[in-house]
Amino acid sequence: MPTIAIIGLGLIGTSLGLALKQRGPSELTIVGTDRERDHAEQARKMGAVDRVESSAPAAVADAELVIIATPIIAVRPTLLEIAPALRHGAVVTDTASVKSEIMKAAREILPPHVNFVGGHPMAGSERSGPGGASATLFMDEKGRGRTYCVVPSLDAHEDAIDTVRGLAQLVGARAVHIDAEEHDALIAAVSHMPIVLSLGLFTLARNSPAWGDLSKLAGPAFGDLTRLAMGSPEMALDIFSSNRDNVIHWLDRMVAEMGRYREMLSGEERPLHEAMLKAQMDRQTFEERPEAEEQQREPLTPATNAGEQFMALLVGARLMERGREVEALLKDDPNERRIRERERERAERDGHENSNGTG
Amino acid sequence: MPTIAIIGLGLIGTSLGLALKQRGPSELTIVGTDRERDHAEQARKMGAVDRVESSAPAAVADAELVIIATPIIAVRPTLLEIAPALRHGAVVTDTASVKSEIMKAAREILPPHVNFVGGHPMAGSERSGPGGASATLFMDEKGRGRTYCVVPSLDAHEDAIDTVRGLAQLVGARAVHIDAEEHDALIAAVSHMPIVLSLGLFTLARNSPAWGDLSKLAGPAFGDLTRLAMGSPEMALDIFSSNRDNVIHWLDRMVAEMGRYREMLSGEERPLHEAMLKAQMDRQTFEERPEAEEQQREPLTPATNAGEQFMALLVGARLMERGREVEALLKDDPNERRIRERERERAERDGHENSNGTG
Repeated sequence: MPTIAIIGLGLIGTSLGLALKQRGPSELTIVGTDRERDHAEQARKMGAVDRVESSAPAAVADAELVIIATPIIAVRPTLLEIAPALRHGAVVTDTASVKSEIMKAAREILPPHVNFVGGHPMAGSERSGPGGASATLFMDEKGRGRTYCVVPSLDAHEDAIDTVRGLAQLVGARAVHIDAEEHDALIAAVSHMPIVLSLGLFTLARNSPAWGDLSKLAGPAFGDLTRLAMGSPEMALDIFSSNRDNVIHWLDRMVAEMGRYREMLSGEERPLHEAMLKAQMDRQTFEERPEAEEQQREPLTPATNAGEQFMALLVGARLMERGREVEALLKDDPNERRIRERERERAERDGHENSNGTG
Repeated sequence: MPTIAIIGLGLIGTSLGLALKQRGPSELTIVGTDRERDHAEQARKMGAVDRVESSAPAAVADAELVIIATPIIAVRPTLLEIAPALRHGAVVTDTASVKSEIMKAAREILPPHVNFVGGHPMAGSERSGPGGASATLFMDEKGRGRTYCVVPSLDAHEDAIDTVRGLAQLVGARAVHIDAEEHDALIAAVSHMPIVLSLGLFTLARNSPAWGDLSKLAGPAFGDLTRLAMGSPEMALDIFSSNRDNVIHWLDRMVAEMGRYREMLSGEERPLHEAMLKAQMDRQTFEERPEAEEQQREPLTPATNAGEQFMALLVGARLMERGREVEALLKDDPNERRIRERERERAERDGHENSNGTG
């Protein structure tokens, strides 16, 4: 039976298990492990994993796909721990919100007979631990897939990339291919710097002598804007220390943007009105995200069921080897060539889009 | 039959009507009006009002309680329009998110035989118009009352204050007494400046050449933090022009706060970790708001039903006159004296709390 190992059964790991159990092929066995025995037991009781193992190497021993869903700081030690225990051809992925460091660690640590494809499901929340987990964590309130970044290592086999893309789609998310450095620069703008904003707004109000009254007047907007301040401080520290320069870059730009609004607030009404009208329209377009729905409808490969395709890839993984010998063998397969071609086109297209830079 | 007039059937006006119909006494007649005939018709079809009048003076003619739920900019013209049509002893309130200007306008415009008590239900959202209205707008997702600021004019009769407090409680909100200047200074911190933050974060990302990729990576946190940018630009302009100095004051403090975080991000881990731990705990306490639940359980006056009490006040309003003669008559009523005493204590307590200033 194809086996998936989930290392780290917190919010993300447990939600992945639940979603795979609910939406994935029934033949799948999911093995889980967590340093906190309570978390692992809770995840098992919730039905997120079929079996709990007491160590990461034990959990990965039979797995075609290994998902590392630990805090960022634990990914490297986990890679070191599981490297000798991974089966040949296994696909290893992670869920960390910072990618450059992780890709580097995987390159250094993992043996050549496994494939690493980084992953980042954009589905965190201020909650943590298996208690907040849900099979629908990877979809928004309208049932549209949330973004799941797929960051292949340079020499990852296309089938390994397809496996992680398949995982993303199976749990209801929307796979987006992206390069690690690009990912970290952009995620700082939309995820990491906003944590600082949220903390800043909250502590500004909280540290004011008027907090007693401020807290009574704080409505849902203040609640939404400061919710991230409830997130795990350890996770935030992890993020900030792994992506510091990008966070500071965007923080400085945000301060400059606020200066721009300060000027508009002090001046004539018209430019401010126009800026707000445009922002309203653009934000509305973003809310509707028509492209998200399109991409969701696009199957993993034409004319196959996503679950079947995913199973085939997992089983295929038993035969996969990374390296030139295997590449050479596969080159003659016309189907493989077609997939490879598509992949290359996408990479070129992505590369082109990304060349716009972050600025 | 006691009658309430609602002028302006947008999100707030229509939601007030729906909540009064759902939770208020069944004998209540609600008359509504809106410059946009479509809004008025929609509100009537939703059951928020019993009857639509084509003008504000016609709507208020029979009303013991008049609720002005128009945009801020329309409150003054509305007061001018209805002043001659108000019945003796009527209580007039509003729902604007800025209070000093409104209190001044009411003082100048309204005749002495009516009572003005400002109101501000903290229940707005990025939506507008009756379409987004709901009977539960004044409660949070846990069913706890959202804050409803009650801002009495200096010479408002206690029964008028009780009427508006009763309105707040009937629709499920939590009445909080506050002075107009204090309100405007504090609301700038928790409601108005956050609009600028939200706009700033959105336009910063949107105007970046990398927006194509940024928008794919933007998750629920970015969505929450930028939702206010979808709000009505006209309403925001209204707010900014009525409360500009306070908004700029808090914007400057927010920029300073972000500078503080920038320093922490660049320095040792420990101070940042401690700051985030404290913020997490404080934000969690704020989320639970135990005092909100307590206050919600406290009845309008002991041993009476809130709905009955509200009706009695509305009926009583027919006899109410503002001014010393009436005050003198009422002074001998022991029950009235008790209520007045409670009110004074509360005012002193509030005054004491508020004397901490805005920080």
